[in-house]
Amino acid sequence: MLLRRVISVSSFKNKISYMKYLLLVVFIPTVIFSQSTQQQPPHAIAIAVHGGAGSLKKLNLTPEQEKAYKDTLAIALQTGYNLLKQGKTSVDAVEASVNVLENCTLFNAGRGAVLTHNGTIEMDAAIMNGRNSKAGAIAQVKTIKNPVSAARKVMDSSKFVLMAGKGAEEFAALQGLQIVDTSYFFTPYRRVQLQKALLGDTAVLDHSDTTGMIAPADITGNPNDKFGTVGCVAIDKYGNLAAATSTGGIVNKEYGRIGDSPLIGCGTYANNKTCAVSCTGRGEDFIRHVVAYDISSLMQYRIINLHDAANYVIKEKLTKAGGRGGCIAIDKNGHIEMPFNTEGMFRGYINTKGQMVVSIY
Amino acid sequence: MLLRRVISVSSFKNKISYMKYLLLVVFIPTVIFSQSTQQQPPHAIAIAVHGGAGSLKKLNLTPEQEKAYKDTLAIALQTGYNLLKQGKTSVDAVEASVNVLENCTLFNAGRGAVLTHNGTIEMDAAIMNGRNSKAGAIAQVKTIKNPVSAARKVMDSSKFVLMAGKGAEEFAALQGLQIVDTSYFFTPYRRVQLQKALLGDTAVLDHSDTTGMIAPADITGNPNDKFGTVGCVAIDKYGNLAAATSTGGIVNKEYGRIGDSPLIGCGTYANNKTCAVSCTGRGEDFIRHVVAYDISSLMQYRIINLHDAANYVIKEKLTKAGGRGGCIAIDKNGHIEMPFNTEGMFRGYINTKGQMVVSIY
Repeated sequence: MLLRRVISVSSFKNKISYMKYLLLVVFIPTVIFSQSTQQQPPHAIAIAVHGGAGSLKKLNLTPEQEKAYKDTLAIALQTGYNLLKQGKTSVDAVEASVNVLENCTLFNAGRGAVLTHNGTIEMDAAIMNGRNSKAGAIAQVKTIKNPVSAARKVMDSSKFVLMAGKGAEEFAALQGLQIVDTSYFFTPYRRVQLQKALLGDTAVLDHSDTTGMIAPADITGNPNDKFGTVGCVAIDKYGNLAAATSTGGIVNKEYGRIGDSPLIGCGTYANNKTCAVSCTGRGEDFIRHVVAYDISSLMQYRIINLHDAANYVIKEKLTKAGGRGGCIAIDKNGHIEMPFNTEGMFRGYINTKGQMVVSIY
Repeated sequence: MLLRRVISVSSFKNKISYMKYLLLVVFIPTVIFSQSTQQQPPHAIAIAVHGGAGSLKKLNLTPEQEKAYKDTLAIALQTGYNLLKQGKTSVDAVEASVNVLENCTLFNAGRGAVLTHNGTIEMDAAIMNGRNSKAGAIAQVKTIKNPVSAARKVMDSSKFVLMAGKGAEEFAALQGLQIVDTSYFFTPYRRVQLQKALLGDTAVLDHSDTTGMIAPADITGNPNDKFGTVGCVAIDKYGNLAAATSTGGIVNKEYGRIGDSPLIGCGTYANNKTCAVSCTGRGEDFIRHVVAYDISSLMQYRIINLHDAANYVIKEKLTKAGGRGGCIAIDKNGHIEMPFNTEGMFRGYINTKGQMVVSIY
């Protein structure tokens, strides 16, 4: 009797062991598999760029000119997208895409930066990592070939977020960034443009650029139309968001004016919980209304989606306040929004399905 | 029959006219009265100031030193409060209060500004009007006696929001602001403090200041403790909010670093719909988390009160993110909050009942 009970208990124990084993065999790989997919999901990648917003119809672009702008935006998109496909981070991608636009004279950033009242160059840029809220920005720099890369160095290799002027240039040089002679930026077109702006000429359209192309957005006589800036937002395969913006500011600017581009929360912001945003427009309006962070906080605190938040902030709130411009924004699902309240915005994206679209109006 | 009908209609019309008249007699004065009270209500006035947050217990302030700090904060409060009582705007009040703190060597702003790595002064300031979202800010200025007044000139007399460096100084001079020789700022105490910071000395406590007083908040060897900044928020009798912040930044700072103080939405923000905020702390944390606007957007989008919003952002969100510092904030009812996550914050207020309280720990 005792023996039978022992056997019975033993066989019961065996059954439990067997079931445990079965569970382990079935369950552990499931857990490992699901953990591995959770830790490194092949998150759908996506990217968007802008090249400034404004009264673009006034530019009267020829089909060739339109093509040149669109082609450059496409190259910028493809450059960042290729990095994302290779498994690089969204921070790498937005920096590389903005570099393409900075190296092109068509856009008001880097080489194409507009001239200040004193005939100098003063460039601003920012970058932000949505994964850890780290950010870097640089303002009033005159000799750094790629300001957005300097902003990245501020983020990655300093304890600061924003550096300006000569100190910022010293830092960039110490970090090994390419420093160029200011003549690199002084394209014939920009000199003529400044001369006309100084004369108060209302039509500063000029085709004497070295590329034969006019520069966008800052071309009309109305200072309200001079919204040249470039920017990029992206999501990488790890599900991390990033944003970057770079600008030469406004033509004929004075008194060391800094706009919204290098200001975290105003012209540039990224947060994995909500979205990544890069703005372009009349910088002062974007500063006063903390536009980039406003979109993020609406999503976080009102629990609304990116479409509703970005369109409300740009098309209703900013418009009602007299502000002009637009933004590109991407959320954690790779959904992209590009609202603007101006005639047009140079913009494009490659969505999570790999489809590229580039537009101006 | 016809006549009777006419009379009847006529008398009906008369009745309507009479009723209209009655309504006008009773209604119009009511509307006028309620409009006049709405337009110019004797809104309860209130004001708050801060003089920086940090590891203040390490300062080992003597009772005399504590008294000097508290007395100065009280003078700053009373200065702004007196203007509010006279019917001046909250913008006037916050500027005047910050001027008092800028003119005192005890605080890290204006005359008491700390020295940079290169032994220079680089001051930042901002001001914002909650009535119309207008804002002005100035960064990296070296010769302007009262940077917050320059920020106000940027707001009132330029189309820009932020100016930096030499251009900002040119603008301030053109606006007739007082420009001083840099020797004005170079107190013996600051020179010793910088020498010690350069030597990596962890204890830079020094009493050789011209006033015999040590400077606060930036006194300990730990760079994390150097949170000197001054600020003020107020509500005027018209129910309008304003905020202002001024700082010398951090001791031994390099590369043209700019902190949160002059950045709208980060260290300074005001909006009649929600609150006015001035921050102090490790500037980079306040930039990354857009602290001042975060408090405002929580109030606006989550419909929570100032107490909950300000305390959540400083004591939970910022603390969890490793950020250190505090803020002063006031809402449209004149309710004041002064949360901080450091050992102390030099702070004080005069509330809507006219009661003054000044505290350090």
